[in-house]
Amino acid sequence: MYSVNVRDHFMIAHSFNGDTFGPAQRLHGATYVVDLELRRSALDRDDVVVDIARAAELLRAVLAELNFRNLDEQPDFRGRNTTTEFLAHVVFDRVAERVRAGALGLEAAGLDSAKVTLHESHVAWAAYEGPLQC
Amino acid sequence: MYSVNVRDHFMIAHSFNGDTFGPAQRLHGATYVVDLELRRSALDRDDVVVDIARAAELLRAVLAELNFRNLDEQPDFRGRNTTTEFLAHVVFDRVAERVRAGALGLEAAGLDSAKVTLHESHVAWAAYEGPLQC
Amino acid sequence: MYSVNVRDHFMIAHSFNGDTFGPAQRLHGATYVVDLELRRSALDRDDVVVDIARAAELLRAVLAELNFRNLDEQPDFRGRNTTTEFLAHVVFDRVAERVRAGALGLEAAGLDSAKVTLHESHVAWAAYEGPLQC
Amino acid sequence: MYSVNVRDHFMIAHSFNGDTFGPAQRLHGATYVVDLELRRSALDRDDVVVDIARAAELLRAVLAELNFRNLDEQPDFRGRNTTTEFLAHVVFDRVAERVRAGALGLEAAGLDSAKVTLHESHVAWAAYEGPLQC
Amino acid sequence: MYSVNVRDHFMIAHSFNGDTFGPAQRLHGATYVVDLELRRSALDRDDVVVDIARAAELLRAVLAELNFRNLDEQPDFRGRNTTTEFLAHVVFDRVAERVRAGALGLEAAGLDSAKVTLHESHVAWAAYEGPLQC
Amino acid sequence: MYSVNVRDHFMIAHSFNGDTFGPAQRLHGATYVVDLELRRSALDRDDVVVDIARAAELLRAVLAELNFRNLDEQPDFRGRNTTTEFLAHVVFDRVAERVRAGALGLEAAGLDSAKVTLHESHVAWAAYEGPLQC
Repeated sequence: MYSVNVRDHFMIAHSFNGDTFGPAQRLHGATYVVDLELRRSALDRDDVVVDIARAAELLRAVLAELNFRNLDEQPDFRGRNTTTEFLAHVVFDRVAERVRAGALGLEAAGLDSAKVTLHESHVAWAAYEGPLQC
Repeated sequence: MYSVNVRDHFMIAHSFNGDTFGPAQRLHGATYVVDLELRRSALDRDDVVVDIARAAELLRAVLAELNFRNLDEQPDFRGRNTTTEFLAHVVFDRVAERVRAGALGLEAAGLDSAKVTLHESHVAWAAYEGPLQC
Repeated sequence: MYSVNVRDHFMIAHSFNGDTFGPAQRLHGATYVVDLELRRSALDRDDVVVDIARAAELLRAVLAELNFRNLDEQPDFRGRNTTTEFLAHVVFDRVAERVRAGALGLEAAGLDSAKVTLHESHVAWAAYEGPLQC
Repeated sequence: MYSVNVRDHFMIAHSFNGDTFGPAQRLHGATYVVDLELRRSALDRDDVVVDIARAAELLRAVLAELNFRNLDEQPDFRGRNTTTEFLAHVVFDRVAERVRAGALGLEAAGLDSAKVTLHESHVAWAAYEGPLQC
Repeated sequence: MYSVNVRDHFMIAHSFNGDTFGPAQRLHGATYVVDLELRRSALDRDDVVVDIARAAELLRAVLAELNFRNLDEQPDFRGRNTTTEFLAHVVFDRVAERVRAGALGLEAAGLDSAKVTLHESHVAWAAYEGPLQC
Repeated sequence: MYSVNVRDHFMIAHSFNGDTFGPAQRLHGATYVVDLELRRSALDRDDVVVDIARAAELLRAVLAELNFRNLDEQPDFRGRNTTTEFLAHVVFDRVAERVRAGALGLEAAGLDSAKVTLHESHVAWAAYEGPLQC
């Protein structure tokens, strides 16, 4: 199994609901350094898993929808806690949707699965991984 | 599949038995930077894999039992080489035991598996992973 | 010249004023991974620059005043842009004030200067350094 | 499951064929920081996955064959694009061959699988993993 | 003294002349992860050292002139060894020239000095620093 | 001013004397990841600060004297606490002595100063810097 990984980041404000979260119930924010891993069992005709420049652009486009925003005001996330693991799933779903829509080209139909990791600090991160079902 | 990861560290002295280990047969020591990854197939009602603050406390408690000690004098490790991979398993077992005993709360029953990685330097690390059987 | 460095982090929300900031004029947020470097020309009687555990506690206490907050609502920062470099200076000043007040003990009178670095992502950081004038 | 990981690097020149690659069709180069992960379900009699010093030597020997070379002139790679993912597979195959030939000793017969990751920059990396079939 | 730092990278081929360089006399290559630090004694009216987005663009523009090239064929470097420290100076000079030409705006006249660090691997890097003389 | 940096590591056991050190008064240990920075105002005839391969060998030789040892038993350190900052100075002095003795060649006479940084974990490090007086 092959994989490629590209890294980018986004910066948001949010707050959490629930006693579990303690002081993180207050409006605060985070930088998320994001790793997108794309997996495939065989290389394509160019000897790549996927055009890495296009993968980087795709990730940048997905993160641009979230970047420099207050997630508490995003209708998509109403009633949810936008935790690191929750956001990892959001980024995964949006990446998967764009891949299925052809953002990485026809060759990307061979992609098997993906993993999205969000680093919230030097001591904590979270991830979501699953099949890409292209 | 979701995962969350917390990082901490501990510092110990030890020596190894066996010609394989060369100069590491002498009493020396190591800093282990430890990553604890907890995995789960669905988020709980708070939209988290687990309360990350409690996961960090749990890891800190487990490492405190090892921190600032000479492992050659620990009865638990008699007759064993406390290699990085061996210690990754030790930390895994102690984390798993505390999780089963409720250290992460009732919700943590949904945890699927875990991975413990011990970094011994910038060029070497080892890990143990397995099911959590909560 | 000797130096010691401790690392911690804090997470805040804020927004910026001025066309220069583009989309960062919207309410967003950041994780700041903070390095505090303390410098001294000679070691004290314990062969340390400063008790590193107390230095870590001091940094934690200073960051706790900022952590999990919306900086736009902090009276101290009214009319200012809480940029990474501005916040590096804020953390520096608060550390210096506590050092002068004895938070690191009498021995810390020998400290010469300090540097505070705030990492806002894997590709951008800022710092402020100056004498400690203990 | 246990794993150990050793890190090393190599530096090469190459060029790519195909419009997909844009300016990377020109002769350029890369530093690859390489992580070799070896996995095993049980520790051996020394409480290790494998002698980590020998694993580091093995990786160094494999990378020495590639280091400080122009890959466009290597007969083994004729007609292929020596992308990061392609080279991860090359390193994997050469490691596996040496492991099967006994480079890690008889105990290494217990190795289950391996993963080779090549970091080409702070924002991009690729990997190949598979069974070791010792 | 304040400083801000932005990070980017470029990938080149080159060879070295002189017995000192051993196997690095062969055509090979490198990824250079580049840190550009800009220093200033006071913040400007926006509370910044410099518009960090413009600093990142400036660095990207300078590195684009070198990226994906064989440095042995660049007339500017004829008769020189394009070592990491030599290239750090080249990047510094080109950054300084653009700053003086106004690439960072009028406010950047307040910049004091700069440092350019080129990381060639996880175990080696080099830097050049000097006044910016704006 | 130019600088080059090489990284290596060593692993030791030790204990500290003095109430300040709390549980670190027990025999424990550390991995120190070491950065050696060498500075010079002009490049030599090969366009380098110093032969980086020889600098790496020099650092390796100095660290080999400390590696895999119990520092409590080293006569050189009797009556001292082998803290991170103390050891940074020890490594600095041993490097400087070898440089003066010609370990980096005649060209190294042009070296100006050096800095030795010892990383004891992902959240703490210490350094010593000074002139090389070659």
